[in-house]
Amino acid sequence: MAEGLDQQTASIYAPIQPLLGQVEERLNNLSRTDAPYLGPLLDYVLAKGGKRIRPAVTLLAAGIYPGDSENPVIMASAVELLHLATLIHDDTVDNSDMRRGKATVTNLWGPHVAVLFGDYVFATAATFVCDTGNVRVIRRFSETIMDLASGELVEYFNAFDAQQARDVYHDRIYRKTASLFCTAAETGAVLGGAPEDHVQTLRDYAYKIGMAYQMVDDLLDIRGDSQALGKPVGNDLLQGVMTLPTIMLMERYPDDNPIGDLFKDREPDGKVNRALEMINNSTIVDDCYGVIRGYCNDARQALESLPDCESRRSLMVLADYIWERSH
Amino acid sequence: MAEGLDQQTASIYAPIQPLLGQVEERLNNLSRTDAPYLGPLLDYVLAKGGKRIRPAVTLLAAGIYPGDSENPVIMASAVELLHLATLIHDDTVDNSDMRRGKATVTNLWGPHVAVLFGDYVFATAATFVCDTGNVRVIRRFSETIMDLASGELVEYFNAFDAQQARDVYHDRIYRKTASLFCTAAETGAVLGGAPEDHVQTLRDYAYKIGMAYQMVDDLLDIRGDSQALGKPVGNDLLQGVMTLPTIMLMERYPDDNPIGDLFKDREPDGKVNRALEMINNSTIVDDCYGVIRGYCNDARQALESLPDCESRRSLMVLADYIWERSH
Repeated sequence: MAEGLDQQTASIYAPIQPLLGQVEERLNNLSRTDAPYLGPLLDYVLAKGGKRIRPAVTLLAAGIYPGDSENPVIMASAVELLHLATLIHDDTVDNSDMRRGKATVTNLWGPHVAVLFGDYVFATAATFVCDTGNVRVIRRFSETIMDLASGELVEYFNAFDAQQARDVYHDRIYRKTASLFCTAAETGAVLGGAPEDHVQTLRDYAYKIGMAYQMVDDLLDIRGDSQALGKPVGNDLLQGVMTLPTIMLMERYPDDNPIGDLFKDREPDGKVNRALEMINNSTIVDDCYGVIRGYCNDARQALESLPDCESRRSLMVLADYIWERSH
Repeated sequence: MAEGLDQQTASIYAPIQPLLGQVEERLNNLSRTDAPYLGPLLDYVLAKGGKRIRPAVTLLAAGIYPGDSENPVIMASAVELLHLATLIHDDTVDNSDMRRGKATVTNLWGPHVAVLFGDYVFATAATFVCDTGNVRVIRRFSETIMDLASGELVEYFNAFDAQQARDVYHDRIYRKTASLFCTAAETGAVLGGAPEDHVQTLRDYAYKIGMAYQMVDDLLDIRGDSQALGKPVGNDLLQGVMTLPTIMLMERYPDDNPIGDLFKDREPDGKVNRALEMINNSTIVDDCYGVIRGYCNDARQALESLPDCESRRSLMVLADYIWERSH
């Protein structure tokens, strides 16, 4: 499967490879030009590690249209910077030592530096967006930071509440994950010169892959192996975070599942594993696959009204990639 | 003296009282319209407590010119929100329980909420600035967040280094304090319709009162009574932060003062008090007053080239107010 995914990502990135190179260059230039103490911090977080999916969405959305690529490249850089800033703060508030095999900023420099440096990266991203000169895009960017922060806050305030309806979950994962995908696509489309109905179509596509992306993450937390995840299986339950599979478990066995007790006494002793077993021995996993597949199919379908071109084909493959990542 | 200061602030705020009321209204509206968990947090931090000096600078700078007041009011609200966001994060990284007699957000809700909520307030401020539709102003706003964050970072990285030249101190207090005063004035002037040379004059004025403002704070830390400060006298030294009076002490008695030892063993036992005594028994305090007086005089002088009006007179009185706060 890994090889299949590698081929897929290669085909997704093919039409924008040179532009993604410009994004990397823009990001790397930051650490060369800044205040002395910031250089090592910027170098550390900007070292290529992530998949750069979000900036790719911006560039591909713009790439459907004939507009100049300069503003989309600036915007894609800002989108990635914003993503990095949220990771810095999320790891800090979660006390996470590692992310994808690499020590976190809060682990190496401490929370004091991580909070302030995260602020610095947020603001740097905002200055990038200002370079586009497009107020609509700048506003959307700021609103997205509000979404991301309020999504994480709601997750925190809702933790250890076993009674969560699906719409609460949907709203939360929209804010904390899909919102940035939407903004990545919308801003790329606007800056690429898309007509307004196409902007909305691309935003809709991105909403769907963003929701699917988070649902895949949530499902992997239940099914994945802890080494690949870099955290224990069932970590969400341990942290009191309800996700689609555990909400389904509550829906099906409202009075006969270990989640209520787990959240009450917060003593995992076997309860997390029992919940995971119940999920794996039911049709819940298949049903989650069904929901994710639905989002990815809808995402592909949304694109069909757009002009056929290499960028559109890449966005289609990206929807497949997100679906296949769940397996 | 307090009564004198009260009269001064009344005369400073007189020409913009209705507009400051609109700023308060705009801020208070935030907590009514937002996601459920954010309401109480917003209510708490927006409850009138601060002096609202920074938004007053924005409104007074704009008030010199005949432009519409709507955008300056929006901008003034954003400036105050930005200030509040930085306080939320500063208190979090400093583990401060109290600020001006009120429990901090990190104290009441914990650092997890404080970090994310601070992000939310930063972003909300940015959406306000977007409402002005002025990209220059939006960019300056983002750059100011970079200044504020990097100023706090530099303070952290420079802590417990006794060998700090005055220009390092100046750069640091510009970033962490004067930068936002500059932006408050510059954006007010731009949105009020000031000609470019007046914008620069008002920025220059604000730079000077901003530097003086921080120097007064730093001097009060040495001389004030701990109750009025809400923290122990000599707190900066205890935290390893060099300020103008302690830099002067190092300049005058490079080999014969307790700061080097204090920063090496970080055991206050009498060393902080000895340093404070040496400062108080020398001309250092008078010399600091001289520097502050100079900044405030220069600030007043800068304004003389601007059209005489009630707003300009208020800005003059504000410079006096900052000077007199030091006594």
